[in-house]
Amino acid sequence: MKGNVIVGQSGGPTAVINSSLAGVYKTAIDRGAAKVYGMRYGIQGFLDEQYVDLSKHIKSDMDIELLKRTPSAYLGSCRYKLPEIHEDKAIYEKIFEILNRLEIECFIYIGGNDSMDTIKKLSDYAIITGQSQKFVGVPKTIDNDLALTDHTPGYGSAAKYIGTSTKEIIRDGMGLSYKKVLITVIEIMGRNAGWLTGASALSVGEDCDGPDLIYLPEIPFDIDKFMEKIRNLIKKKNNVVVAVSEGIKLKDGRYVSELSGNAEYVDAFGHKQLTGSATYLCNLISSEIGCKTRSVEFSSLQRSASHLASRVDINEAFMVGGAAVKAADEGDTGKMVVIDRVSDDPYQCATGIYDVHKIANDEKLVPREWITRDGTYITEDFLNYVRPLIQGDYAPFMVNGIPRHLYFPKK
Amino acid sequence: MKGNVIVGQSGGPTAVINSSLAGVYKTAIDRGAAKVYGMRYGIQGFLDEQYVDLSKHIKSDMDIELLKRTPSAYLGSCRYKLPEIHEDKAIYEKIFEILNRLEIECFIYIGGNDSMDTIKKLSDYAIITGQSQKFVGVPKTIDNDLALTDHTPGYGSAAKYIGTSTKEIIRDGMGLSYKKVLITVIEIMGRNAGWLTGASALSVGEDCDGPDLIYLPEIPFDIDKFMEKIRNLIKKKNNVVVAVSEGIKLKDGRYVSELSGNAEYVDAFGHKQLTGSATYLCNLISSEIGCKTRSVEFSSLQRSASHLASRVDINEAFMVGGAAVKAADEGDTGKMVVIDRVSDDPYQCATGIYDVHKIANDEKLVPREWITRDGTYITEDFLNYVRPLIQGDYAPFMVNGIPRHLYFPKK
Repeated sequence: MKGNVIVGQSGGPTAVINSSLAGVYKTAIDRGAAKVYGMRYGIQGFLDEQYVDLSKHIKSDMDIELLKRTPSAYLGSCRYKLPEIHEDKAIYEKIFEILNRLEIECFIYIGGNDSMDTIKKLSDYAIITGQSQKFVGVPKTIDNDLALTDHTPGYGSAAKYIGTSTKEIIRDGMGLSYKKVLITVIEIMGRNAGWLTGASALSVGEDCDGPDLIYLPEIPFDIDKFMEKIRNLIKKKNNVVVAVSEGIKLKDGRYVSELSGNAEYVDAFGHKQLTGSATYLCNLISSEIGCKTRSVEFSSLQRSASHLASRVDINEAFMVGGAAVKAADEGDTGKMVVIDRVSDDPYQCATGIYDVHKIANDEKLVPREWITRDGTYITEDFLNYVRPLIQGDYAPFMVNGIPRHLYFPKK
Repeated sequence: MKGNVIVGQSGGPTAVINSSLAGVYKTAIDRGAAKVYGMRYGIQGFLDEQYVDLSKHIKSDMDIELLKRTPSAYLGSCRYKLPEIHEDKAIYEKIFEILNRLEIECFIYIGGNDSMDTIKKLSDYAIITGQSQKFVGVPKTIDNDLALTDHTPGYGSAAKYIGTSTKEIIRDGMGLSYKKVLITVIEIMGRNAGWLTGASALSVGEDCDGPDLIYLPEIPFDIDKFMEKIRNLIKKKNNVVVAVSEGIKLKDGRYVSELSGNAEYVDAFGHKQLTGSATYLCNLISSEIGCKTRSVEFSSLQRSASHLASRVDINEAFMVGGAAVKAADEGDTGKMVVIDRVSDDPYQCATGIYDVHKIANDEKLVPREWITRDGTYITEDFLNYVRPLIQGDYAPFMVNGIPRHLYFPKK
């Protein structure tokens, strides 16, 4: 391949975003790239001339394997939206000045919808100004809400963590509910799409009944009906476990998490912080029914738990990274790699490629028919879709009893 | 061995309490017990004639291995304190009527301080009334606050989970803090003893700086000094992570988690809401400094995460279970098995035995000299103590991508 490669990471962390980075790096080297650069903190850091020669940090096959086992963005991430080209040409001139100086031919960006917007604008600018660089995106998000791709790297590992932890929490409650009711409400990420919350049903098996109720954000949440369900459940069993999305909303559009009247507070990305649905529902149950409740939030743990990553997910993340380099090297630009499911049983998938100009900013929601009629559980179709994505383990390299990660040495 | 054996579990769950159960069962069978019974829900369920023939549920070596990988109390647990013998003789008569009917010679109870009280009272009653049964206790608690034993089964696995998850959360924040401050406060179990919160420092290594501050409940928490530490830290770094015990208290004895009750945190029903220590501190930092914060609670996850159990812990839990049966079979009664550390380096330990009558209800706290002078971190001595306890893995048996547990079939 001619020229150098640069790769960046953007948006929220996942357990496998670095496996995509490893796939980009390994494939670029294998295809003969002279240099592979990594942007620190995505395009935002790049604009501050923050980049590294990756061969100085990934020095061996062992380092590649360590990188695949390292959660969150190894290079650092950002949430930075490029202006429209006509709004601020100077910023594009600066980016291309650096790209040309570094003799970059392939620009790979690993991220979600916002990152694909970056790919689109940079590839447009290159074409308009007659420059040769190719721009290809690699999808990534635990939320699994990107359209066009069967699923998104990062989702499988988060789903595996959620299924496993839900099962452990159910077990925890089983031991504690002799002659007394214990209601646990688990709060799971996903502000608009219920893919992660639905994954709590992966806990179902011969050895576990799974959660009793599952509420996705796709279906308006009815507090009265919820309370009626709870009242009926505790007539039959003592250990009741409910999984709710952080994003469940009432019919009138208000988030359940807003009802507690807690001061609104905004997260690191400027999104309204939604934690609190589970706490709110626990308080409601305690005060109306008077039984013991507890809320469990899987919080950032669910997107960073590389110690429980899915092997399918790690391998697919690596594969889409490599496919992006191959596509750019073969002349594709303004494209995103996607995953196509070739077969359900046995599960097989392959990479495809999609024009980023055609990506609408649609969020892929859980189909209505994969949610039960009364909106309180997911169906077998949902489980058949997600189960292949959580298969296999990718054992961490343990040092002193704790998983080892790849790191940047301090200066 | 003559006669039958009965075993029960009591108190809060751990990831390895069932490994002790497996050790009791296997050792009893190996020593020739005709029958091994399990109490459902400890002594409380036993009083309701809730017991099972364990050989009907643990049918093979494979089941024993599954049991060792199953979190929370397989038999169910209780929190039930027996009355003093002179207060209610009838309850003792009932217990011994069942024990005699089942031809029990060895009674093994796995639990914390309260469970040892049960062992004491039952062994006293047997001696007073001239009955032959032997009563031996097996220690268990994630809190590691039992005196007399070097450490407690359950602690090592919880510590491994806390070290690993803290490291993943630190990594999560690293990717998200370019040109902006993100402060994470992690809340860890331990009402009075800081063993679990201190374990967050297990994340420290070449590849991780660990938390910036660690606050144990042993040291009075000074909010002004804490805020000063935070203000100084954010001058130097963007990704600040603090580990606090759920039980941190002010000098005047109030829990930090109580403080929010004094503020305007009132739920929809006008009830004062007691948010956690971490949430309180996050809100305080947000409002006083204005930077992004997030609280992460390890909640029940930290005591039930058998998917990340420590091999040393699982094996020691099994060993103390077995040692209890051996002691009872050899005539000991009114005793608890303890773990003695024979050597630090290489780590070696052996079981000992202790008279439950001599157990004072002392909680074993983290020694003052294992906490730094200013009370905001733990020392190398603390780490040297805990590191051997988190070594080695005990891979779950994965079925359909999720850990399998041993279960009671539904009737």
